[in-house]
Amino acid sequence: MPTPLPLARRTSDLVGSVIDSSTSLLARQTHDIVRFAMGAPSDDLMPVELLDRFAAHSEPHKYSYGASEGVPALVEEIVKLQSDRGLTTSPERITVTTGGMQGLDLACKLFIDPGDLVAVEGPTYTNGNATALSYGAQLLEVPVDEHGLDVDALAERVAASGRTPKAIYTIPNFQNPSGVTLVRERRERLIELADSWGSVIIDDDPYGLLRFEGSPVPSLIELDPGNPRIFSVRTFSKILAPGLRIGWVDADPSLQPLLINAKQAMDTCTSVPAQITVTEFLAGGHLQPHLDRVLGLYHERKEAMRAALARTFGSGVSSTDPDGGFFLWATFADTEVDTERLFEGALAEGVAYIPGRAFSADRNFGNALRLCFATSTPERIDEGIARLGRALELHGPHRAGS
Amino acid sequence: MPTPLPLARRTSDLVGSVIDSSTSLLARQTHDIVRFAMGAPSDDLMPVELLDRFAAHSEPHKYSYGASEGVPALVEEIVKLQSDRGLTTSPERITVTTGGMQGLDLACKLFIDPGDLVAVEGPTYTNGNATALSYGAQLLEVPVDEHGLDVDALAERVAASGRTPKAIYTIPNFQNPSGVTLVRERRERLIELADSWGSVIIDDDPYGLLRFEGSPVPSLIELDPGNPRIFSVRTFSKILAPGLRIGWVDADPSLQPLLINAKQAMDTCTSVPAQITVTEFLAGGHLQPHLDRVLGLYHERKEAMRAALARTFGSGVSSTDPDGGFFLWATFADTEVDTERLFEGALAEGVAYIPGRAFSADRNFGNALRLCFATSTPERIDEGIARLGRALELHGPHRAGS
Repeated sequence: MPTPLPLARRTSDLVGSVIDSSTSLLARQTHDIVRFAMGAPSDDLMPVELLDRFAAHSEPHKYSYGASEGVPALVEEIVKLQSDRGLTTSPERITVTTGGMQGLDLACKLFIDPGDLVAVEGPTYTNGNATALSYGAQLLEVPVDEHGLDVDALAERVAASGRTPKAIYTIPNFQNPSGVTLVRERRERLIELADSWGSVIIDDDPYGLLRFEGSPVPSLIELDPGNPRIFSVRTFSKILAPGLRIGWVDADPSLQPLLINAKQAMDTCTSVPAQITVTEFLAGGHLQPHLDRVLGLYHERKEAMRAALARTFGSGVSSTDPDGGFFLWATFADTEVDTERLFEGALAEGVAYIPGRAFSADRNFGNALRLCFATSTPERIDEGIARLGRALELHGPHRAGS
Repeated sequence: MPTPLPLARRTSDLVGSVIDSSTSLLARQTHDIVRFAMGAPSDDLMPVELLDRFAAHSEPHKYSYGASEGVPALVEEIVKLQSDRGLTTSPERITVTTGGMQGLDLACKLFIDPGDLVAVEGPTYTNGNATALSYGAQLLEVPVDEHGLDVDALAERVAASGRTPKAIYTIPNFQNPSGVTLVRERRERLIELADSWGSVIIDDDPYGLLRFEGSPVPSLIELDPGNPRIFSVRTFSKILAPGLRIGWVDADPSLQPLLINAKQAMDTCTSVPAQITVTEFLAGGHLQPHLDRVLGLYHERKEAMRAALARTFGSGVSSTDPDGGFFLWATFADTEVDTERLFEGALAEGVAYIPGRAFSADRNFGNALRLCFATSTPERIDEGIARLGRALELHGPHRAGS
């Protein structure tokens, strides 16, 4: 019999992603399913023809290794994109990454030692937690309400833990999965707390440019320009196309040599043709028209989903009311509803979502679920929520015969 | 004054890559330089037009997230590519990676705990060492001779260390940087040693398909099919184009769920358009004709470089005589020559290489250097080696006035 493989201790914490696994499960289904599970623009919401055109653009060294910090023309376009929105940055602050996920991997590589405390939102993005866990972090879950991360609860829970967090992981805008946005006063308080503890803020903002109503809230970097504790992770996945795997980190220039070294030991550089495709798209001025087109649709779809939930469940379900992004967070009033247990029945009825517990380090939110409103038409949203209602009747805790 | 950033302990081991840094230094030069430094096919040795054509190919879900283990059509092509060469594999063994580098990152993520011993070749690929160091590995350097890794020395050094290695990192074919190939008897002995120690063999083979003379040696997996300790890292970077960042891991099926979880916390999935480009290239049967074209050139160029070295330095330089790949390893007979110190002078004379110490965990090989013969024409090779001779005369240890 072979000796067991000498796995590293961290492999017991390699939890993977419920979201990505649900995606695989969904891919195997052959009947009609309204898909509220995945958080990615659907094909018709991506500028596919333009991307194909730019992908074919010939360019010297397009298939060679690129600089680890990113193709210079793309870095320049990213600086422009940020400054067009009033955010001062510079090439020394930018490192191109293989999607936003690699930005999180880099943050953990630079800051997290095994056993370090990392404060995370509850609920939050599963894969963010998974990455911190893969570096041996201990997660401290802090509640989120309709104004974003509850910073008073953060202070209390940190005090109760008797330790200070090495990092605070937050998604300030149209948070995944809740859709809520961190209000300005809490952002300021968050920065103060991080400074007082010597913690880094991992500021993950994939959705910030997807605001379709309400007024923008200044980003953490805008509130405290040059604060080296703010480590910002950005991506083109949600505003353009996730398959390209292009994101960036905006961080203190003192960190760039370390980021480059770390990235060289991860994947050398990000796919150069994919970087060039994005560069051409940005340089051609195509991002804003694209956003203008999709944001109207996202708004309409959020309204459709809120209306459908009210129509189907009345006061049986409460939900957040996001001003942007992809997701809303729905909670059944009946705490006996278990959205994990309901999932299979929902799939049978033809609707998919992500169960609430997937987003919690402490496995909270058993009666909640994440719904992506962005990728289905209003008609499909009506149909999907009606199916969810039927799933609850037929497969929920109070189904006939149960 | 701001508190210093709370960096993780591993950041002191984030050594980065001398190779990649040399590349950046080279990119800043404006005078004519014969480039023997980088190990990547030059633009004219990549099927750029075909790649551009396939990059433009429209395909459903091309810009969406793909499966973390890889686009199924690419996995299928990889299985075919391997079995066409007599190597039995299966989709359950294959995980598509963001270049070979991510294969090494995944290997370390799965197997290396801080403080673990990792046996590495001396000299070896710098970035492989860097990745192991970024996971806190302690490196045990074992010499390489013209028959590859010295497996007797491996056994002795391991015995002397009083510990067994968690992993053995080897590049069996046309090794980077030495160009040597591990002979069959040593491969068999290596597998026996790894089995006796319970070690994993990280079998990194970017160049195996680039044989231009001599007879193939069976791969480690062919010698012991199904041995779960053999973790094989492969890439399209050297046989096709590095900028795409497409590689794969061929590993025991029991590891695939862990590989998927680990990859989800690294970059979710590999760039989908880049995967599709490679899939189309392989499915169209373009790889073998491409290899047939370049291998003849590589062979001719290796001969040109060996001849130029003999002409310029006579017995003053000895070099390896690779049967494939990109590199040869040259050593000055005069141990006072320091190729790191010589580098600036060589650059001034218009020739670039990578100094030997860059490839050594113990900073050995001060009088050696890696020369990439694959990317320059015979005429440029003659010119570059002549410049190297001039650099030695003008800037070496015995220059006039020194």
